[in-house]
Amino acid sequence: MNKQKLDLSLYDNKSNTSSISVDVISFLYGSLIVRLVKDFNNDINEINKQTEQMGYNIGLRLINEIIASPIGRNLDSSDPNLLNSLITCTLSNSLGLNGELKKINEKEFHFLFDNNLLALYVEIPENLKGLIYSNIINGLLRGVCEIANFKIESKFIKDKLNGDDINEIQINLLDIIEERFVDDEA
Amino acid sequence: MNKQKLDLSLYDNKSNTSSISVDVISFLYGSLIVRLVKDFNNDINEINKQTEQMGYNIGLRLINEIIASPIGRNLDSSDPNLLNSLITCTLSNSLGLNGELKKINEKEFHFLFDNNLLALYVEIPENLKGLIYSNIINGLLRGVCEIANFKIESKFIKDKLNGDDINEIQINLLDIIEERFVDDEA
Repeated sequence: MNKQKLDLSLYDNKSNTSSISVDVISFLYGSLIVRLVKDFNNDINEINKQTEQMGYNIGLRLINEIIASPIGRNLDSSDPNLLNSLITCTLSNSLGLNGELKKINEKEFHFLFDNNLLALYVEIPENLKGLIYSNIINGLLRGVCEIANFKIESKFIKDKLNGDDINEIQINLLDIIEERFVDDEA
Repeated sequence: MNKQKLDLSLYDNKSNTSSISVDVISFLYGSLIVRLVKDFNNDINEINKQTEQMGYNIGLRLINEIIASPIGRNLDSSDPNLLNSLITCTLSNSLGLNGELKKINEKEFHFLFDNNLLALYVEIPENLKGLIYSNIINGLLRGVCEIANFKIESKFIKDKLNGDDINEIQINLLDIIEERFVDDEA
C-alpha cells in the first residue's frame, strides 16, 4: 500500500490555477465510462468496481494537491475535525463540487450537492441501470482519506442520474489505521 | 456526421466556472491512457488513433462551450480570422493551455505551449515510445473546427514528453467544407 505520513510542512507548492473546461472534463470522463462499458461488456458491477478503484488510485496521489489548496494549508493532523476537513477539501477543491457536508456523528458524514461536473449532459440508458456513473468520486475520497490513515467507505445514497432530486454521498469512517513509524529522512 | 451550423446567436449560457483540479484531470486522463494501453495491448498506432477519435467526438460536442467563452462570444462567422480564433479559443479556454498561436500562412498555424495539463507527472516508458500521449488535443481541435466547416489536420511536432524543450502543435487547414443549408427551425 502506497502510504505517506501526513506531514503538512512538506509541501508548499501552489495548485495550478489554469484549468480544462468542465465540458471537456465531463466528456472525457464519459469517454472513459464508454470504454469501460465496452471492455466489461455491460457488466455493471465490474464497471462500478473499476471506477471506484481508479478513483482510489488517483486519491492516493492527490496529497500534494490537497495540502497546497486553501483548505489544505490549514489542515492540522492533530485536529479532531481532520477527516471532516479532508472530505470537504477533496470534494470541493479537487472535484469542484459545490455542496454541503453534514456531520451525522463522529463516524458518519453526508455530502449533498446539486451539480455533478462529471455527469453534465449524461443520461443512463435502460440497459445500464445500476451503474454508479460517478463512482470514481467514492474511490477518490477513499484514497485521499487513507493517506491520512482514515479507512472510510463512501457511497451514493442519492443520485440525480437515477432521478433523485439531489446528489448525496454517505461517508462512513470504518477504522483509523494505526500508523507505523516510517522515517523518510533516514 | 454530426454537423451544426455555427450560429452565434443561439447560445447565451455562461460556461461553468467551478472546476475539477488539474491534478485530478491529469490523473483521470492517465487512467484512460492506461486503459487503452491494456485494451490495445501496447499497439501504439491504434492507441494514437483511439485518443484522436475520442478528442474528435468531444470536439464536435463543444460548440456551446466555445461560443459561451469570452473569446467565443466575439467569434464572427464572417471574420477571415475565424479559424485562428477558434483554435485559440479551443486550446486556451477548453483545454486550459497557455501558449502562443503563430500564423505561418493562411493555411498553417503553430501553437507553442509549455505546460500540458493532461500530462502532469507523466513519463513515457521505453516500450511505449511513439505514443502521442496527448493526441486527444489534436482530435478535439479537428472536431471543433469541423463544426465551423474547417477541415483541419493537427499534430504534435514537438512534445516535452519526448524530450523536446517545448510543446508545439502544427495545424493545417486542408479544406473548407461547403455548407449545405440546414433549417433547424423548420
